[in-house]
Amino acid sequence: MSDLDPDLAGLPLVDHHCHGLVRRDLTRAEFESMLTEAAGPSALGGSLFDSQVGLAVRRWCPPVLDLPAHAPAAEYLDRRAELGADEVNRRMLTATGTGTFLLDTGYLPEPITSPAQLAALAGGRAREVVRLEALAEEVLAEEVGAAGFAERFRTRLAARTAGAAGVKSIAAYRVGLGLEGARPADAEVARAADRLLAGGGRLRVADPVLHRFLVWCGIDLGLPVQFHVGYGDADVDLHRCDPLLLTDLLRATEPAGVPVMLLHNYPFHRNAGFLAQVFGHVFVDVGLATHNVGHRSGAVLRELLELAPFGKVLFSSDAFGLGELYLLGTLLFRRGLGRYLAEGVAEDAWTTADAVRVAAMIGAGNAERAYRLS
Amino acid sequence: MSDLDPDLAGLPLVDHHCHGLVRRDLTRAEFESMLTEAAGPSALGGSLFDSQVGLAVRRWCPPVLDLPAHAPAAEYLDRRAELGADEVNRRMLTATGTGTFLLDTGYLPEPITSPAQLAALAGGRAREVVRLEALAEEVLAEEVGAAGFAERFRTRLAARTAGAAGVKSIAAYRVGLGLEGARPADAEVARAADRLLAGGGRLRVADPVLHRFLVWCGIDLGLPVQFHVGYGDADVDLHRCDPLLLTDLLRATEPAGVPVMLLHNYPFHRNAGFLAQVFGHVFVDVGLATHNVGHRSGAVLRELLELAPFGKVLFSSDAFGLGELYLLGTLLFRRGLGRYLAEGVAEDAWTTADAVRVAAMIGAGNAERAYRLS
Amino acid sequence: MSDLDPDLAGLPLVDHHCHGLVRRDLTRAEFESMLTEAAGPSALGGSLFDSQVGLAVRRWCPPVLDLPAHAPAAEYLDRRAELGADEVNRRMLTATGTGTFLLDTGYLPEPITSPAQLAALAGGRAREVVRLEALAEEVLAEEVGAAGFAERFRTRLAARTAGAAGVKSIAAYRVGLGLEGARPADAEVARAADRLLAGGGRLRVADPVLHRFLVWCGIDLGLPVQFHVGYGDADVDLHRCDPLLLTDLLRATEPAGVPVMLLHNYPFHRNAGFLAQVFGHVFVDVGLATHNVGHRSGAVLRELLELAPFGKVLFSSDAFGLGELYLLGTLLFRRGLGRYLAEGVAEDAWTTADAVRVAAMIGAGNAERAYRLS
Repeated sequence: MSDLDPDLAGLPLVDHHCHGLVRRDLTRAEFESMLTEAAGPSALGGSLFDSQVGLAVRRWCPPVLDLPAHAPAAEYLDRRAELGADEVNRRMLTATGTGTFLLDTGYLPEPITSPAQLAALAGGRAREVVRLEALAEEVLAEEVGAAGFAERFRTRLAARTAGAAGVKSIAAYRVGLGLEGARPADAEVARAADRLLAGGGRLRVADPVLHRFLVWCGIDLGLPVQFHVGYGDADVDLHRCDPLLLTDLLRATEPAGVPVMLLHNYPFHRNAGFLAQVFGHVFVDVGLATHNVGHRSGAVLRELLELAPFGKVLFSSDAFGLGELYLLGTLLFRRGLGRYLAEGVAEDAWTTADAVRVAAMIGAGNAERAYRLS
Repeated sequence: MSDLDPDLAGLPLVDHHCHGLVRRDLTRAEFESMLTEAAGPSALGGSLFDSQVGLAVRRWCPPVLDLPAHAPAAEYLDRRAELGADEVNRRMLTATGTGTFLLDTGYLPEPITSPAQLAALAGGRAREVVRLEALAEEVLAEEVGAAGFAERFRTRLAARTAGAAGVKSIAAYRVGLGLEGARPADAEVARAADRLLAGGGRLRVADPVLHRFLVWCGIDLGLPVQFHVGYGDADVDLHRCDPLLLTDLLRATEPAGVPVMLLHNYPFHRNAGFLAQVFGHVFVDVGLATHNVGHRSGAVLRELLELAPFGKVLFSSDAFGLGELYLLGTLLFRRGLGRYLAEGVAEDAWTTADAVRVAAMIGAGNAERAYRLS
Repeated sequence: MSDLDPDLAGLPLVDHHCHGLVRRDLTRAEFESMLTEAAGPSALGGSLFDSQVGLAVRRWCPPVLDLPAHAPAAEYLDRRAELGADEVNRRMLTATGTGTFLLDTGYLPEPITSPAQLAALAGGRAREVVRLEALAEEVLAEEVGAAGFAERFRTRLAARTAGAAGVKSIAAYRVGLGLEGARPADAEVARAADRLLAGGGRLRVADPVLHRFLVWCGIDLGLPVQFHVGYGDADVDLHRCDPLLLTDLLRATEPAGVPVMLLHNYPFHRNAGFLAQVFGHVFVDVGLATHNVGHRSGAVLRELLELAPFGKVLFSSDAFGLGELYLLGTLLFRRGLGRYLAEGVAEDAWTTADAVRVAAMIGAGNAERAYRLS
């Protein structure tokens, strides 16, 4: 068994949840608006470079652009502009060392890279994760009518996910995670669709019956279902996004044997670890938090790994937009996990061989098995 | 004052909450099913030996069976089978060094050791903790009728607890911890019993009025009342098991001056620490978590000890079934607490004398005082 | 850029939330009753000196009274009595090194120092924070009638806060933090006032409409609004005090651009950090917890600083009554933050210059900007 590198620099990775890259050049305000989950820097609070993720950008990203580590934000952004977004993205993505990306293609606030484009930048592979609510809204907009929605959606989802790795639910953003478990009957779905269509205006799925229906459609197709859980932007009511609120639905879906992936989870990641232990089909990660907490990524991972069996933990960056976030999400995951495993070896809690094996599972093996990637 | 051993290897312990041992030989699947709160290993997630508690078993238990530390799971289980469950149990229990065990005798999914048998294996003493709901279901099954239930239960509980150390409520598993505080009148109890008896089928107490009544019966007898709180198996709705939901009941019962013990608490152990500080009769532990989080036991204890006064913190293993869990629950508690106290000495946060005194309180003194064991 | 002192001993501080000092001499029981959020030591649990904050008093306070560190509690209290409360208070307050105190003057269980008196003891400046509910109860007691309450309160608040730094809401203690966001109409306020006045007895504001109205009055005056959040005494229902419950109100008040300060937050401080990131007007601290968790102050700060932008984090002691708590709140904040920042420098997560700058922001700069103190 080889030695354990505390940076896990060469560890093969599957980034099982991320988004596309923005390809245009950005002002400082635009860069800061993509740096955290804030809409942007606030007049009251100052620059978002003064945050864990901001200091992490300054620590790790300047060398990728030929600047010294810890370069000031203004110098860094000047150099970024000089190289251009495409070159920056290429350098950042190459530096991640990620082999496979699973991309949520349902969040498109502006034009971003496709899965194939992202993979090409990194010299890796990409697969799509289909956002359930976006597809449902597309089907509803086709004037199929409430009664025909359920059937049309099932057909469309099967077609749309032919090459996809899984599906994703954003029920957390729309109604929270307190969903009942039982599969809703088509008549119930039709009534919910009718309520939505009768409402007029922009079609926006935000009904517990519909979210539950969509999830069950994914389960019925045997597709791993990702859930947004916990940490997100100001649109999220975080107190409705505790993964424990999914308990009923997890209990109901477990017999199907289809993986359910709880994304992000912070600051409820210990709760997620519990669910990963007691429900055989639940997988968990701490993506998005990993780069946002910067220097503290290892502390968060340690908490996740208290109860979560090591065969149920995944890696994701949940990066969106900025190449820097893909690099940081990856690098801080590698260092956070690697240093924890190395410490355990030093304290004789486990062997080097076990540490190497656990790193391989969490980095890629678990995702390959759960998503049947190989 | 003697030196502080960072392993607290010789610290006298009262394990104020545990269960009995399984005495039959176990297959690997059976062993794994008792290792964590999962029903067993899942096809999707792999072996539960790949978890904190699994690696802790491999680190600490093989030497007790004459194998090297970190022996592979298969070798360990072979050796376990070779020695037989009785010999393994004897070795593990002896290695705990625990002097007194308080056993919850209300969980019997299969034949397990009695309190006296367990104590004999460890060379210690044992006392019983009577599970309130099990006794209530026994009384209800006697066709006493709803109107006679309250009185019959009080009489039976007094008799049944003559030699007991306390009682235990599993309201958390049945209805959650959001119980009102006020003692229910007998007429209210009778109505609740009537609802239950009218329901037919297996008699299963799951009614806030009844759980509250049972708790008050324990209080009235002056018996310490244990509550399952937080972490448990997949039957638990963990979001209903935050100890803070007990606030009303704690406020109502405090004047009685009878100890209330909040068990496990993870991942709500900081909340439990708060309750231990502000309510004079509340005691807390992090049993069950202590061995499940393995190498991280000290981290969890540190959080518990932030607000909880040191005179209100108890030790428990909450071990069930496997001799290994008694040993790990004990050893990881000793090391977790001992290293924290030693670090505090090294940083001059407290003196060695204080550290030694605090360890003695938490290990045994607080339990002896609260349960009047001596 | 100067070196980073890991004790941040000379860092200028604004204590943006504290109370007054008790000036009489105290018995041991009285001292212990002010030491934590417990009403006092319990017969079951022993002395509250056996707690994190108790050991921290013994570590840090005896030298200020000319005794060796770690002096026994009895010796310490004897020396305290010998010097007298005024001298002890003067020594403790001087030792804080705090330049500016913002005092909540609405909690007066017994005579305590005024802002000016406290400032004089420390050789610093003081500004008042007006407690909204106390002022509302004062106005209601003037028999203004329900219909006239809203207008009279607005006028009174404007007058009363002429020289004040901000206002404070204790909705958490009265009804919890699950307040709607929308500004209530005066007619709605009148109905709520009518319900309260009709209730008879002591006038005690405990109505979501009224708390919300009071907060909006502060916002309309452009005054920073402090909220009690999280940790407090046994009167608080902690499960109703999670800052996430304020999400609606934060969303509604953000456009006004008036700072909202979430106080204490423990054990929900990570949730508070999230809110500080996504809402531009939200500031956070971990006052009260900082001294209560003693030796663990740095651990709590590290968690707060995971998501909270460094421009949105404030210092407060939330000290009340005992001079010791002002010193400990300050000293444990300085050490907790300083050691964390120094560790980050040692690990090359950030530069010394950044660490020094961040310390200055959190210690005083953010408060000076948000409260417009300079």
